[in-house]
Amino acid sequence: MSMTPDTSALSVPPLQERKPQRPQRVVIVGAGFGGLSVAKALGNSVLDVTVIDRRNHNLFQPLLYQVATAALSPADIAEPIRRTLGRYHNIKVMLAEVTGIDRVNHQVLLNQANPVPYDRLIIATGSEYNYFGHDEWRAFAPGLKTIHEARLIRQRLLLAFEKAELSRDPKEKKALLTSVVIGGGPTGVEMAGAIAELGRFMITRDFRKLAPEDFRVVLIEAGPKILAAFPDDLTDYAHAELEKLGVEVQTGRMVESITKDSVIASGETIFAGNILWGAGVKASPAFRWLGLDPKAGGRIPVGPDLRVEGTSDIYAIGDTALGLGEDGKPLPALAQVAKQQGEYLGRALRNELLEGRKPEPFRFRNRGNTAVIGRHAAIFDFGKRRLKGRVAWLLWAIVHVYLLVNFEKRLLVSIQWLWRYATRQRGARLIDENAGNIVPATTQRSET
Amino acid sequence: MSMTPDTSALSVPPLQERKPQRPQRVVIVGAGFGGLSVAKALGNSVLDVTVIDRRNHNLFQPLLYQVATAALSPADIAEPIRRTLGRYHNIKVMLAEVTGIDRVNHQVLLNQANPVPYDRLIIATGSEYNYFGHDEWRAFAPGLKTIHEARLIRQRLLLAFEKAELSRDPKEKKALLTSVVIGGGPTGVEMAGAIAELGRFMITRDFRKLAPEDFRVVLIEAGPKILAAFPDDLTDYAHAELEKLGVEVQTGRMVESITKDSVIASGETIFAGNILWGAGVKASPAFRWLGLDPKAGGRIPVGPDLRVEGTSDIYAIGDTALGLGEDGKPLPALAQVAKQQGEYLGRALRNELLEGRKPEPFRFRNRGNTAVIGRHAAIFDFGKRRLKGRVAWLLWAIVHVYLLVNFEKRLLVSIQWLWRYATRQRGARLIDENAGNIVPATTQRSET
Repeated sequence: MSMTPDTSALSVPPLQERKPQRPQRVVIVGAGFGGLSVAKALGNSVLDVTVIDRRNHNLFQPLLYQVATAALSPADIAEPIRRTLGRYHNIKVMLAEVTGIDRVNHQVLLNQANPVPYDRLIIATGSEYNYFGHDEWRAFAPGLKTIHEARLIRQRLLLAFEKAELSRDPKEKKALLTSVVIGGGPTGVEMAGAIAELGRFMITRDFRKLAPEDFRVVLIEAGPKILAAFPDDLTDYAHAELEKLGVEVQTGRMVESITKDSVIASGETIFAGNILWGAGVKASPAFRWLGLDPKAGGRIPVGPDLRVEGTSDIYAIGDTALGLGEDGKPLPALAQVAKQQGEYLGRALRNELLEGRKPEPFRFRNRGNTAVIGRHAAIFDFGKRRLKGRVAWLLWAIVHVYLLVNFEKRLLVSIQWLWRYATRQRGARLIDENAGNIVPATTQRSET
Repeated sequence: MSMTPDTSALSVPPLQERKPQRPQRVVIVGAGFGGLSVAKALGNSVLDVTVIDRRNHNLFQPLLYQVATAALSPADIAEPIRRTLGRYHNIKVMLAEVTGIDRVNHQVLLNQANPVPYDRLIIATGSEYNYFGHDEWRAFAPGLKTIHEARLIRQRLLLAFEKAELSRDPKEKKALLTSVVIGGGPTGVEMAGAIAELGRFMITRDFRKLAPEDFRVVLIEAGPKILAAFPDDLTDYAHAELEKLGVEVQTGRMVESITKDSVIASGETIFAGNILWGAGVKASPAFRWLGLDPKAGGRIPVGPDLRVEGTSDIYAIGDTALGLGEDGKPLPALAQVAKQQGEYLGRALRNELLEGRKPEPFRFRNRGNTAVIGRHAAIFDFGKRRLKGRVAWLLWAIVHVYLLVNFEKRLLVSIQWLWRYATRQRGARLIDENAGNIVPATTQRSET
């Protein structure tokens, strides 16, 4: 990785040569935290910006577990991309699937639409769950990356309870009331905690024939501790809080097999009505578009200006990029990294394309890492300072409401949270009519 | 229909014969407006009440069109049945599908669960859309009865706009931006009005390459006027308001054929990206469980005490029942009829089973019939008095917020409405990840 300015990148010819003068075309693939930050920073400039996403909405993934556990509605944490970017006259939005990049002719290839030419291309396609070579597990143990998956998990969870209520076989009943969460990262911990709270509430309030002692939530982590990215004191606290909620935390256990209704981990079989996957992510397959090796979990190596190594007009940001921090270690796959990289890149492109200025290298500023375990229990790691318990929980709630892009959503989520806080009720306990037919969306289509 | 009291119905034996004494079992099939009203009226009594529904939620259907047009989230207008009835210790809820009624052994037969015995059975299974012998149209022109269908319609509508934005073929573009609503009843009128408002808003605010003149909403009605149940002056007003919104109202036109992307009505072919069915309902197939003829649209004839004719322990209420008003005409298939019948029947059963008193015959009290066309435009028909315009619209909104069962939902819906009123934004413009694979749920399973 060289710190020398890469002058080949200045593809804008001197002013007198430009005829007819046309605006520089910036194409952004992916409208998550990273892609949207770039787009906003380029909004209402003379640049011709196109944002391409295969979904029409921007999803606030940190709260997706609340959709999966029936606390929020999908629309509470999702916003149409067109709406987010509607105020910028120079930004076009395309709902389309990228199939490749033609680096020779500088264009993005799309499924069922014409190629889109670019002068600068930003890849911000995020990450997906890594089943470590066992993609057949996906159907039985969905991850939590999309609204479809969140709904799927919600359906399965609620349906398992309904089936248990009807069952007269004590063994079956117990299995249906068992949830297994695989992976002790923040998503796994949040899911396990939320399921434990929801399940206990439903059993005591809504079901007549279910016994609290039949209800079981198991959190399986292969490593020696959960929440590996956090310091030990916070991890210990989270571990203890999960156990207070009734979650069985099993560390150091490897999952060997997953079927429709069971998990085998370190030789022990657990029958379960609901199995969830949160055991690690890999970058989106965008590296294939560039003909790169899938090393480092498919993340695309970038230089200090976030340019993809070996290219002059392509950048990668967020989970799909492999950038290095000041300590020389890879930056974590966190929303705040994506957002900061997006803001930086937007500024850098403006400076370079409009004013001909060279960018400073990107520097990540740690805003604090957080995870929530349950009511009144969360952890915050700000590097030097740490926070846990009721205050951390309150801060977590405030930060997340604040981060929700849109005012209406903020207000709606706040009200629902306050209501739930007071009543412990869950508002979005819906089972779809076609619950019997649900399959994970991801098994139905190709991997682009 | 005889007004003579039917003493055979008093199946409760004299007190001294009851040994061991067990509570009378009331089974309610269907948890819509009717079924829930009965259940609530029987709540916290000594009766043993079971509510069976194939869905886990109670749906506020009058606002379902707002889910289909991206104004509300499904969970805003749906509540888990267990939650609604959770406070009554004597009511059990079962998520199950009824397959038949064994009148000899007095039990309800279920799919994948044991039969449920009853002393009194209430059928409150509602209605479904009637495709008048063309059930193959259902896949192309979904009706609006379930959350799944509302989501399906929302997906198709939003996806058609996205495809139109990408299209370079002017003909295709125009077709994709055309919506055809079949049926000029309240649902059809509400859908046409809401689509017109949503489409115009999206084109002016969010899309760059769509022209307002390519956007078209066609409302097709076979009869001579829309909203046939309303007096002429209100119908004329609604017709004019729809045209102000840009809806083409075509009355006296018969639909002859529907394909994936076109409707042929009275010889003319309309190509459309979005086709909707609201052209008449028929009762649920519950009449088959009783071995009745599907006369009168499958509605089950009931006496003045809502007992199914020819039975002593089975009742039918709501859309699935054919009851007669004081004028000797069949009662309309309206939520208020179902609700009043449910409340009446609950009281009647309490009186009879607990106190041995005979019920008075049921009398329907018209609370006013309403339909909403769009912003500031609605109609009310109270029989003698009529209301239209801005005041009717405000009253419509107040009544509907009031009727939403639950406090949280009321508040959430009110806030979203106020926000939308101020901004004209739509909050729930979500296209699912698996949008390409969506099919109507109703084509995927049997008709029970």
